[in-house]
Amino acid sequence: MNFSSKLLEDAVNEFGKLPGIGQKTALRLVLYLLNKEQSEVAQFGNTLIKLKSEIKNCVVCHNISDFDTCSICTAVKREKEVICVVEDTRDVMAIENTNQYFGVYHVLGGLISPMDGIGPSDLHVETLVERVKNGDVKEIILALSANMEGDTTLFYLHKKLKDFNIPITTIARGIAFGGELEYADEVTLGRSIVTRVPYENTLIK
Amino acid sequence: MNFSSKLLEDAVNEFGKLPGIGQKTALRLVLYLLNKEQSEVAQFGNTLIKLKSEIKNCVVCHNISDFDTCSICTAVKREKEVICVVEDTRDVMAIENTNQYFGVYHVLGGLISPMDGIGPSDLHVETLVERVKNGDVKEIILALSANMEGDTTLFYLHKKLKDFNIPITTIARGIAFGGELEYADEVTLGRSIVTRVPYENTLIK
Repeated sequence: MNFSSKLLEDAVNEFGKLPGIGQKTALRLVLYLLNKEQSEVAQFGNTLIKLKSEIKNCVVCHNISDFDTCSICTAVKREKEVICVVEDTRDVMAIENTNQYFGVYHVLGGLISPMDGIGPSDLHVETLVERVKNGDVKEIILALSANMEGDTTLFYLHKKLKDFNIPITTIARGIAFGGELEYADEVTLGRSIVTRVPYENTLIK
Repeated sequence: MNFSSKLLEDAVNEFGKLPGIGQKTALRLVLYLLNKEQSEVAQFGNTLIKLKSEIKNCVVCHNISDFDTCSICTAVKREKEVICVVEDTRDVMAIENTNQYFGVYHVLGGLISPMDGIGPSDLHVETLVERVKNGDVKEIILALSANMEGDTTLFYLHKKLKDFNIPITTIARGIAFGGELEYADEVTLGRSIVTRVPYENTLIK
């Protein structure tokens, strides 16, 4: 692209580095910002700078946090004996949005993926083992994605944690709400039959 | 969304204000930035702040510029006697990308649109008239979008400029390259027949 301004070009290039944003979209965003007040744009810029410089990872669960220990780990109402192991912050937010879980989390920071060169040592597995060893843990829920990497990680974590004799559970796989049987894939449908549950258990109490 | 961090929430909200970027995309972008180096994120933020505080509009053509007069208006190679009138900076960039135009521009800053409350006084029309009055202008090219607002503005500008007895032209409307006749709309096809050109003129010399 032919830019009449170096400042414009720099800003477009910065936006263009973001995933899923090409040159044209970047230009549209920058021109949008140019029409905004100076103070608004400055706030945008400063928020980003502040974000990266001040944000921390919780020392207990590795979730993104403003403080050394995150708000979930410090909340008195949460059951500290139940740990839900997830891939990243997005999964924590997704589970929190359900309002169905009241334990704490452990954020792995990824999944085991030999293809991408990510092994167990790149994830927060050791600290999880420490938490289980030292804490009064009653249940470990492995809430990982139902794909190859998720299953590999599931298998590895189970091997690491099974000797503690603590119940290890995984979130249920099955037909999603609103999903129709005839369009479900065979693996999901098959698994949902094998792991069928008593009807009474599905009723909200 | 349930954010575990105020800093994260602020950054997601800032990105979420941009056109076409929802909460989920904003979160994805912020998490992407969080994985980058501190210096890269700071550069992003500072580029935006600098963009808005330092960028200028060219005093001659109103195009976005780093200096008081833009690089096109100051270039000795450009024909100052030909002025191409466009809606905004994006159009200047689009025409510059063709490498087919060697005159200068005049950026209106929008199109007349009574629906959006934009009248001629909101656009840089007076400065265009001044340029034509004071300068040695040989041709005015009106390169505006082929929609209602573009046609309204075209009509208005023609009325304003016709008394100077300078050739006023508009960019050709017709079937785009790669376009098939049977799929072209009637208006475009009809106009392309009415404004047909000698075959010799279409050959690149």
